[in-house]
Amino acid sequence: MILTVTLNTALDVTYEVDGLRPHCSHRVRTVRGRAGGKGVNVARVLTALGHSTQVTGLVGGPTGELVRADLAASGLADRLHQVAGDTRRTVTVVAGDVGDATVFNEPGPRVGEREWAEFLAHYRESVRGAQAVVLSGSVPPGVPVTCYHDLIRVAAARGVPTVLDTSGAPLLAALPAHPDLVKPNAAELSEVTRVANTGQAAERLREAGAGAVVASLGPDGLLAVTGQGRWRAVPGEHLLGNPTGAGDACVAALAAALAQAHDVSSVDWPRALTEAVAVSAAAVAAPLAGEYDDAVRERLLATVHVDGTSLS
Amino acid sequence: MILTVTLNTALDVTYEVDGLRPHCSHRVRTVRGRAGGKGVNVARVLTALGHSTQVTGLVGGPTGELVRADLAASGLADRLHQVAGDTRRTVTVVAGDVGDATVFNEPGPRVGEREWAEFLAHYRESVRGAQAVVLSGSVPPGVPVTCYHDLIRVAAARGVPTVLDTSGAPLLAALPAHPDLVKPNAAELSEVTRVANTGQAAERLREAGAGAVVASLGPDGLLAVTGQGRWRAVPGEHLLGNPTGAGDACVAALAAALAQAHDVSSVDWPRALTEAVAVSAAAVAAPLAGEYDDAVRERLLATVHVDGTSLS
Repeated sequence: MILTVTLNTALDVTYEVDGLRPHCSHRVRTVRGRAGGKGVNVARVLTALGHSTQVTGLVGGPTGELVRADLAASGLADRLHQVAGDTRRTVTVVAGDVGDATVFNEPGPRVGEREWAEFLAHYRESVRGAQAVVLSGSVPPGVPVTCYHDLIRVAAARGVPTVLDTSGAPLLAALPAHPDLVKPNAAELSEVTRVANTGQAAERLREAGAGAVVASLGPDGLLAVTGQGRWRAVPGEHLLGNPTGAGDACVAALAAALAQAHDVSSVDWPRALTEAVAVSAAAVAAPLAGEYDDAVRERLLATVHVDGTSLS
Repeated sequence: MILTVTLNTALDVTYEVDGLRPHCSHRVRTVRGRAGGKGVNVARVLTALGHSTQVTGLVGGPTGELVRADLAASGLADRLHQVAGDTRRTVTVVAGDVGDATVFNEPGPRVGEREWAEFLAHYRESVRGAQAVVLSGSVPPGVPVTCYHDLIRVAAARGVPTVLDTSGAPLLAALPAHPDLVKPNAAELSEVTRVANTGQAAERLREAGAGAVVASLGPDGLLAVTGQGRWRAVPGEHLLGNPTGAGDACVAALAAALAQAHDVSSVDWPRALTEAVAVSAAAVAAPLAGEYDDAVRERLLATVHVDGTSLS
């Protein structure tokens, strides 16, 4: 079982409108809502890839009830921890097929000190029996910036490897706890390291404590900087579509490889990166975050080009 | 007591963002939610003007619970009728002080035939003891287009005068039931009558069954076409601000005048229009729909210019 952690779960709401006109009123044609947050999307992809998963994190209020109902409807195992505040919404406004969507991300409910302590205890129980833990996304107000640091420590003490996908201060604060695998995108990498070169920036994260760094480069694939060597993995074709959720699909594939290897030093990197590039690109071809087009994934698996130097 | 009816109640949510950029992701700085829908706003203004009110209409689901909680917190008497569907939200995106807000209006829950019949029975009870009934806003999916017609008939049978503020097909379908006072804006008037001249269009509504028509002309005030004569009421100054809710404030003042007169033929029109113009303009000066700046209202009362011809 792979445990995904989403501290700032969300109800992802999509509004379909005829056209987006700033400073005007819009009649919303259709309203759809589904459980979201990066870790939830990772769990959806892991499940579709055939892996057993559990979803934990924080949830609360009437919006939280809708999140939990959708998890149940999606067949995802719900180990979320209840808090008093109302779970946030994200609103994605889709205006026909014209351009990318416009997204509004609410900050999330304020989490109390006691609620955080209770979640830590709940998480200690949830980690038992996990083959890997995935820690994804932003941190709601009130949760300490060292949250991922503490969650990684708990997993490491039980011998469970961790994948971290966050940015900014929570990413920096987590590195001394030695996450096994960190997956920033190029912008997040240069933001936290202030180094423009992606490879050099990834090395900095390893020096600061990360076991391996896999940087996502959008349509240009992945760069892995690991204790076993460096690899670049490039998709055989560029797909157009919805880039939301491609990063979560990539994290799902990497977490599956890490869970199988038990240890980050035993990961078959060329194989893991090929799967990660194929499923990310297949996620771009699917309309919703957490989904991917399996025919596209199968087709791309054969065309991903991996280039690199193994140290062994 | 003045009864306000809001068939499509809403949770009015306001998102504050740094700037609105179409096709981009936005971090929402603050999220505020309050009970809304035009009849709820009318009830807020009536209460502030010192009138006893009750709020009825349809509400449901977790969003409906938030609406009811906010009504209670606002001291508004809740006579809403519960339905199974989830009450809609409106999302207003405010980007600093740059331009008007951008608004997304969800369509509202689908209301079943049986739910509508149950509401009619509930409404028959609610109308007892009302001095006036205000019928405001859009109609949720599933509610018959003749809904306002039927609600007006019920009130008329009990001798309770009605104010109607809606548009399109529900407005047209209601006129044969003889609403005592109809308040369209100029655009709504020309849309339903296909007559560009506001005065002529208002006459058409009276011919079709409306007792009196008060057309709102935005910053240019009001035009009243009644059985007692025609009046134009113009504010002494033009105010800048938030026009959302100005129409609801106007309806509140007109409903108060109608409730006091008992009969639309006894309304003191110059006085009623003066109050309606002053409170509408004072609503423009307030940030939220359903509120007005009382100092502005007091100042404007003395400066409204009313011009007209009484037939008596």
